[in-house]
Amino acid sequence: MWGGRFAEGPAAIMRDINASISVDKRLWREDITGSKAHAEMLAAVGVISEADGKEIVDGLERVAQEIETGAFTFSADLEDIHMNVEARLIELIGEPGRRLHTARSRNDQVATDFRMWTRRACRDAADAIGVLQVALVDQAEANADVVMPGYTHLQIAQPVTFGHHMLAYVEMLERDRSRFADAAARMNECPLGAAALAGTSFPIDRNRTAAALGFDRPCANSLDAVSSRDFAIEAVMAASLCATHLSRLAEELVMWTSPHFGFVRLPDAFSTGSSIMPQKRNPDAAELCRAMPGRIVGALSTLLIMMKGLPLAYAKDMQEDKAATFAAFDGLSLALAAMSGMIRNLNVNRDAMRAAAALGYSTATDLADWLVRTRRTPFRRAHEIVGRIVAIAEKKGLTLDKLALSDLQSVDPEITQDVYDVLSVEASVGSRTSFGATSPTNVRERIADWRTRFEEMPT
Amino acid sequence: MWGGRFAEGPAAIMRDINASISVDKRLWREDITGSKAHAEMLAAVGVISEADGKEIVDGLERVAQEIETGAFTFSADLEDIHMNVEARLIELIGEPGRRLHTARSRNDQVATDFRMWTRRACRDAADAIGVLQVALVDQAEANADVVMPGYTHLQIAQPVTFGHHMLAYVEMLERDRSRFADAAARMNECPLGAAALAGTSFPIDRNRTAAALGFDRPCANSLDAVSSRDFAIEAVMAASLCATHLSRLAEELVMWTSPHFGFVRLPDAFSTGSSIMPQKRNPDAAELCRAMPGRIVGALSTLLIMMKGLPLAYAKDMQEDKAATFAAFDGLSLALAAMSGMIRNLNVNRDAMRAAAALGYSTATDLADWLVRTRRTPFRRAHEIVGRIVAIAEKKGLTLDKLALSDLQSVDPEITQDVYDVLSVEASVGSRTSFGATSPTNVRERIADWRTRFEEMPT
Amino acid sequence: MWGGRFAEGPAAIMRDINASISVDKRLWREDITGSKAHAEMLAAVGVISEADGKEIVDGLERVAQEIETGAFTFSADLEDIHMNVEARLIELIGEPGRRLHTARSRNDQVATDFRMWTRRACRDAADAIGVLQVALVDQAEANADVVMPGYTHLQIAQPVTFGHHMLAYVEMLERDRSRFADAAARMNECPLGAAALAGTSFPIDRNRTAAALGFDRPCANSLDAVSSRDFAIEAVMAASLCATHLSRLAEELVMWTSPHFGFVRLPDAFSTGSSIMPQKRNPDAAELCRAMPGRIVGALSTLLIMMKGLPLAYAKDMQEDKAATFAAFDGLSLALAAMSGMIRNLNVNRDAMRAAAALGYSTATDLADWLVRTRRTPFRRAHEIVGRIVAIAEKKGLTLDKLALSDLQSVDPEITQDVYDVLSVEASVGSRTSFGATSPTNVRERIADWRTRFEEMPT
Amino acid sequence: MWGGRFAEGPAAIMRDINASISVDKRLWREDITGSKAHAEMLAAVGVISEADGKEIVDGLERVAQEIETGAFTFSADLEDIHMNVEARLIELIGEPGRRLHTARSRNDQVATDFRMWTRRACRDAADAIGVLQVALVDQAEANADVVMPGYTHLQIAQPVTFGHHMLAYVEMLERDRSRFADAAARMNECPLGAAALAGTSFPIDRNRTAAALGFDRPCANSLDAVSSRDFAIEAVMAASLCATHLSRLAEELVMWTSPHFGFVRLPDAFSTGSSIMPQKRNPDAAELCRAMPGRIVGALSTLLIMMKGLPLAYAKDMQEDKAATFAAFDGLSLALAAMSGMIRNLNVNRDAMRAAAALGYSTATDLADWLVRTRRTPFRRAHEIVGRIVAIAEKKGLTLDKLALSDLQSVDPEITQDVYDVLSVEASVGSRTSFGATSPTNVRERIADWRTRFEEMPT
Repeated sequence: MWGGRFAEGPAAIMRDINASISVDKRLWREDITGSKAHAEMLAAVGVISEADGKEIVDGLERVAQEIETGAFTFSADLEDIHMNVEARLIELIGEPGRRLHTARSRNDQVATDFRMWTRRACRDAADAIGVLQVALVDQAEANADVVMPGYTHLQIAQPVTFGHHMLAYVEMLERDRSRFADAAARMNECPLGAAALAGTSFPIDRNRTAAALGFDRPCANSLDAVSSRDFAIEAVMAASLCATHLSRLAEELVMWTSPHFGFVRLPDAFSTGSSIMPQKRNPDAAELCRAMPGRIVGALSTLLIMMKGLPLAYAKDMQEDKAATFAAFDGLSLALAAMSGMIRNLNVNRDAMRAAAALGYSTATDLADWLVRTRRTPFRRAHEIVGRIVAIAEKKGLTLDKLALSDLQSVDPEITQDVYDVLSVEASVGSRTSFGATSPTNVRERIADWRTRFEEMPT
Repeated sequence: MWGGRFAEGPAAIMRDINASISVDKRLWREDITGSKAHAEMLAAVGVISEADGKEIVDGLERVAQEIETGAFTFSADLEDIHMNVEARLIELIGEPGRRLHTARSRNDQVATDFRMWTRRACRDAADAIGVLQVALVDQAEANADVVMPGYTHLQIAQPVTFGHHMLAYVEMLERDRSRFADAAARMNECPLGAAALAGTSFPIDRNRTAAALGFDRPCANSLDAVSSRDFAIEAVMAASLCATHLSRLAEELVMWTSPHFGFVRLPDAFSTGSSIMPQKRNPDAAELCRAMPGRIVGALSTLLIMMKGLPLAYAKDMQEDKAATFAAFDGLSLALAAMSGMIRNLNVNRDAMRAAAALGYSTATDLADWLVRTRRTPFRRAHEIVGRIVAIAEKKGLTLDKLALSDLQSVDPEITQDVYDVLSVEASVGSRTSFGATSPTNVRERIADWRTRFEEMPT
Repeated sequence: MWGGRFAEGPAAIMRDINASISVDKRLWREDITGSKAHAEMLAAVGVISEADGKEIVDGLERVAQEIETGAFTFSADLEDIHMNVEARLIELIGEPGRRLHTARSRNDQVATDFRMWTRRACRDAADAIGVLQVALVDQAEANADVVMPGYTHLQIAQPVTFGHHMLAYVEMLERDRSRFADAAARMNECPLGAAALAGTSFPIDRNRTAAALGFDRPCANSLDAVSSRDFAIEAVMAASLCATHLSRLAEELVMWTSPHFGFVRLPDAFSTGSSIMPQKRNPDAAELCRAMPGRIVGALSTLLIMMKGLPLAYAKDMQEDKAATFAAFDGLSLALAAMSGMIRNLNVNRDAMRAAAALGYSTATDLADWLVRTRRTPFRRAHEIVGRIVAIAEKKGLTLDKLALSDLQSVDPEITQDVYDVLSVEASVGSRTSFGATSPTNVRERIADWRTRFEEMPT
Repeated sequence: MWGGRFAEGPAAIMRDINASISVDKRLWREDITGSKAHAEMLAAVGVISEADGKEIVDGLERVAQEIETGAFTFSADLEDIHMNVEARLIELIGEPGRRLHTARSRNDQVATDFRMWTRRACRDAADAIGVLQVALVDQAEANADVVMPGYTHLQIAQPVTFGHHMLAYVEMLERDRSRFADAAARMNECPLGAAALAGTSFPIDRNRTAAALGFDRPCANSLDAVSSRDFAIEAVMAASLCATHLSRLAEELVMWTSPHFGFVRLPDAFSTGSSIMPQKRNPDAAELCRAMPGRIVGALSTLLIMMKGLPLAYAKDMQEDKAATFAAFDGLSLALAAMSGMIRNLNVNRDAMRAAAALGYSTATDLADWLVRTRRTPFRRAHEIVGRIVAIAEKKGLTLDKLALSDLQSVDPEITQDVYDVLSVEASVGSRTSFGATSPTNVRERIADWRTRFEEMPT
């Protein structure tokens, strides 16, 4: 029955429920760092002796070394990383080890460790985004004046430059990066010392531990400190948005690499081949990025549902927080690395892009704008005139720049020869020089801006 | 940068993207069973020789044995369970092994394996639900006439029996069970033989492989067979609803075990204690069940987002399907086992329940119904009369059955002595004998029904 | 402050919280039908007089007429549709109206009304799916032998027929249809008579009301009857899967109508034009269908989160159920209608599809299969041989069927002239005759099957 | 069939798809403000004449007046608010009206309007949070020293003060407030002038329109400007977290108002009564707040699913953005108003809280800490000693402070009379004076901090 799960009896079930060690052992560095800061503080304020403090710190460093070298044996009976480390510490140093847990509790300890992990994950994600942004700017520079179709509804609408298209994603990613920075800053308060839920009567120095662990300050309310997980949820929210942006670019890569577009070619290293069809370059890495919002938004749902309607303070429900957060950041990290690799190594087929850009009367708006600018035709009227001209072009099977002047004049006699100056795709993109527009000049200015910003970025 | 992920180069990233072996090795039984059926069919229709067929089947059984005994070495370079098994088969038996993959493709193979796994998971879940239903019916029987408060808005509304309350969950779970049965039935069509996406020109016998693998019939469209995952999503949907039902009962257990209710006591085996407070019985197992919709609905989100807008046929995005489905069913299986264990071992505090049932003027509706029944008072008027009586009771600090007849008559002179027959909580629950109502008699009838149904259930 | 919401005071806030009439007035037909059945039953069992019963029924019919003709004034002060109808009934017929609410409560009343609505929505959805299936089968028939590319990873893999592609969706939709049927059947138990939560002491006949309202039987547990909403959630789950299927076809329509594919043309009636670019046919209806999982899965999330961890029985939280369910079914109904319209009127460009199908060495698998079939080459070896041949073809810029026999023989001397019989896309699809495969013959057989099934369908 | 939807024909379906006016008319103020800024800019840079510019602005003000007074007739044929306003403008002022749409498109127009709306919604939400924070601080001040149970797992763990509990939510809400501020700041870039997707060749001044509309700067990439919706998603994410926090407090209110706790009483104005049970105070407003994450996280799902995998630039899918965002903010606004009203008017039952705080040996940790502090017992040993003492207390049915000294000394002979100083709940909370702890002194300091911060807050 149930694959035998129940047959193993309550002990087996409760072990599966309680033992989080398989998930939370990933927090071992944070746990040891946090305990060292706590012990040093306890000694500094006199709650434990200096000697005990030193023994604890030394002991913790030995535990760290054991874990790092693989000599440590994790035990599910000790439930979690916190008990595993403390138990080993007591084995190693005896009595002083029993003093480490003074003035704290697992509730503030796990909150502290998990915050440190999530803070690091946010910063790593921001860095990985930066790497992708550089790859996009590099591609933008290499293709600043490559003309491609701009789409609405996947119908060709107006020509744009490939550089401009790449920079659109740099903008989105910049907001993603700033969201991770905001999340990391907002969570940067230290729960340590909140104890079980009510604080403690020991004269601890929470500013000291907070500073030692790189936090801006201690959390100001002990109940909130142990029972809030919005810091992790906000981080996963930032990851969800970033993954959504990656999924859009990924969808474009999947389409662009298909024979119907043929706009780009992915390097072998980022494609999956087929032994039977050696020409095939399956964009697996792009498809993974496209699917990634699934994994990350799924984790976000898990976290939000878990916290809904939970009374204060700690409840076991919250144990679900780490698996979901780890899964989200593992997925994001993989997707960012894969996307950076693809973008950096993208082979752009200028001719295919240029040819497609000319389809669909993509310079019709330029013609309307020419009427407004040179003939002072009200825009809504110009719009109608161009509609009639495109109808003629369609009937004759010609692009706009191949229509005879007489055809143009048959709709609006005021049209003159110089209209042809605006009807090519190159003229179109060249003329789009308003701030934020697609012209190669704009793209290059913007690239220069980004280069400057990247240089100024702290590393 | 990014914890070094990118530094490892494209190969490392692509390995992380492609190698699903860490997840899908769980499908090894299904994979070998499917391959055996395929080989036997190929031999039966003459696509391969009888001798080759036999060698393949024997070889696959050796592979199975190696995996079962732990002698098998899984290789990430071989990407997934399918290639791991086939490669080992060729190592073991040589040339005939190279004929196994005739007239199939990984696309139909993985779809077949995963369907078999999910079908089994649905059936196991249905069985585990059955176990929990029996535990609930047992508790209902033991407490058929225990009176407890029935709530609306967590305010005490009318008395009910604990047996009736338990049976409410038996009903919900019965629908959950039937949803798993429906899902298992609907998915029971065999993708094997759909090949990559278009079927094959070999004269294969798909009815034979379908039957051999316990399917009702082969899938009727090859494109659909390899590119649909609604079977897994429907299974996770059934799991989501079941988890939602468990979360409601879990919330009640958390409240009932708190000192404010004290309605039930969980056995030590299903509680987590505290070495400092030995009386404490933290309902960790209940809290896990309460949180479980998070994990399962999260997996559901993952799957739905992954499939949204995916063109036919196979895309790499779909590789995300297994991790999410496995996580959902692992979680559900754990929650069902934990809940069964808790319910089976629940200690019910009749006195605490009875005392609470009398609070809140819970028999006010009985008084109104008495007026309607004996005095032909229209219900809406009876409603108003009772409102005024309860106001008097509240003012005097008495329960309804302790009010003097004169007090009752001061509001409605037609009230007579025999009204007291309906004002106790026992009288109230005893009188609720309409079909589906809460009286002990009803509860016992219903228990008998369930016993009969459980006996008739196929095992 | 807050757009003045708070300034209006508690009364305004509570009215916004309580008044569900703007949402639930949509249930008016169900409410009146349910009340009529209840009144007739009360009279039949003697709880009210025959005369009162008749007056109530006549009065309810007058209310229905008022609502139908727009003469009815809905009042937010009366909170919901149930109180609006009952209050008006009492205005119209006086005292007997006050007897209607005997032996029921708003809790069972709303559950009954909402089940009837959801049951109808499921049946309507199933019908609308049937309409779309017919449109798909019609397209399949008209294009049974049109060859198009079959894709994996949006790379061209093997040729398929357009008819086969259409029928893939007929399969998916058939499962969707059966899910709605299952949901409608499972929910078909009547809550009426469960009263507030505990049943009633009146001798009501729940079988009678259940039958009168088209239910298979009454709900067997009163607590479950008033506090479960899995019926609505299951219905929205079925809608979520159906919307996911539609989103896949919609994505294909968006791509196929783009100039890069040019496979199909949507009629004007189902496109949005542009006055400036008259050739433009924006596939807005397809994009709406693609986005629809957002709306429906969002509603599903709402419902699942709302129910998570809710203790029995009724809680105000559940009031959120109707807005979400209505939104989901409105969206699905619109998407199904839009998709049926598009498919029915799709113009298929056979030449564009045929031309694309020949790209990408799409018959490479046919060559491998030929080697297996005629030369008894083990498949894995045949696979390698074909890989080398395709490499030559790619180098020479030729499709497989244009390669010289000497080129083929340079890789495998056993290849003979008759191999050319399998290298065209027509030969490829023609040879795929295994059950469920893509050949025109298969497609026509399958169409015949569907026609028969549609005829047998109850209407 | 389908409730007749299809019978109405394509026109009806497409109208339902295209006509967003029923949803987006809510943007009328933003639309007119945006158009005025655009017209003034066009005149300033000479694209239109000063006279035309003035006529347009005057005309738009007339349109605004018509809408405000209800004189305006919205037309579904004109699809959306943008076309409705522009069409009316042209009716009113003729030719100059046809010049308004120069150098812009609906794509940048709708993005601008929707950003302005969302920015305002974020600011309003932040204000409404501030109101709730003040209410919580007021309750904290009035109940700074009221002792209540602090819970883990809903088991009584340690005594805390009610003031401290209230302030925990002030902390959570402060982070929510700062998230809305961050979102509003990050989105504060103006899309106007991005035109359809590529920018424009007109010499527009985007800095001018950005400044006129209160944006910090124009969006720097036209493709990003028209096709990104992360601004709305981030806002709904902040709303989701805030709603999750409210749901936790709401769950507590539902429990606290139940007779099992009896900790607080909600005023009539924020409860729903029952005419039959006048004492009943259903916490409907709290239940609505508890359910609110359903509505808001549902909207978040909608938005994330909608955007997943969408290629640039505008697609019709995005039309779903507004309904979801409006629903989320309407819900949040209602929940914040309801919660503020409840908290402001909460009647606290000190005695019930105090009595419950003493249950469950809630000062056991104080005893352990006393041993550590006065006897230098290592904490883990103290932990064990207290466990044995609590076992005695449980056996004798006494609270810790009622145990005889001899009983205490039977476990640890070093315990002395002065231990009783720490065993009362008052002593316990009084001693918790570490930073962020629960003592009344801490609570009062923290209240003073909040008062100062609220005063410094810009209004």
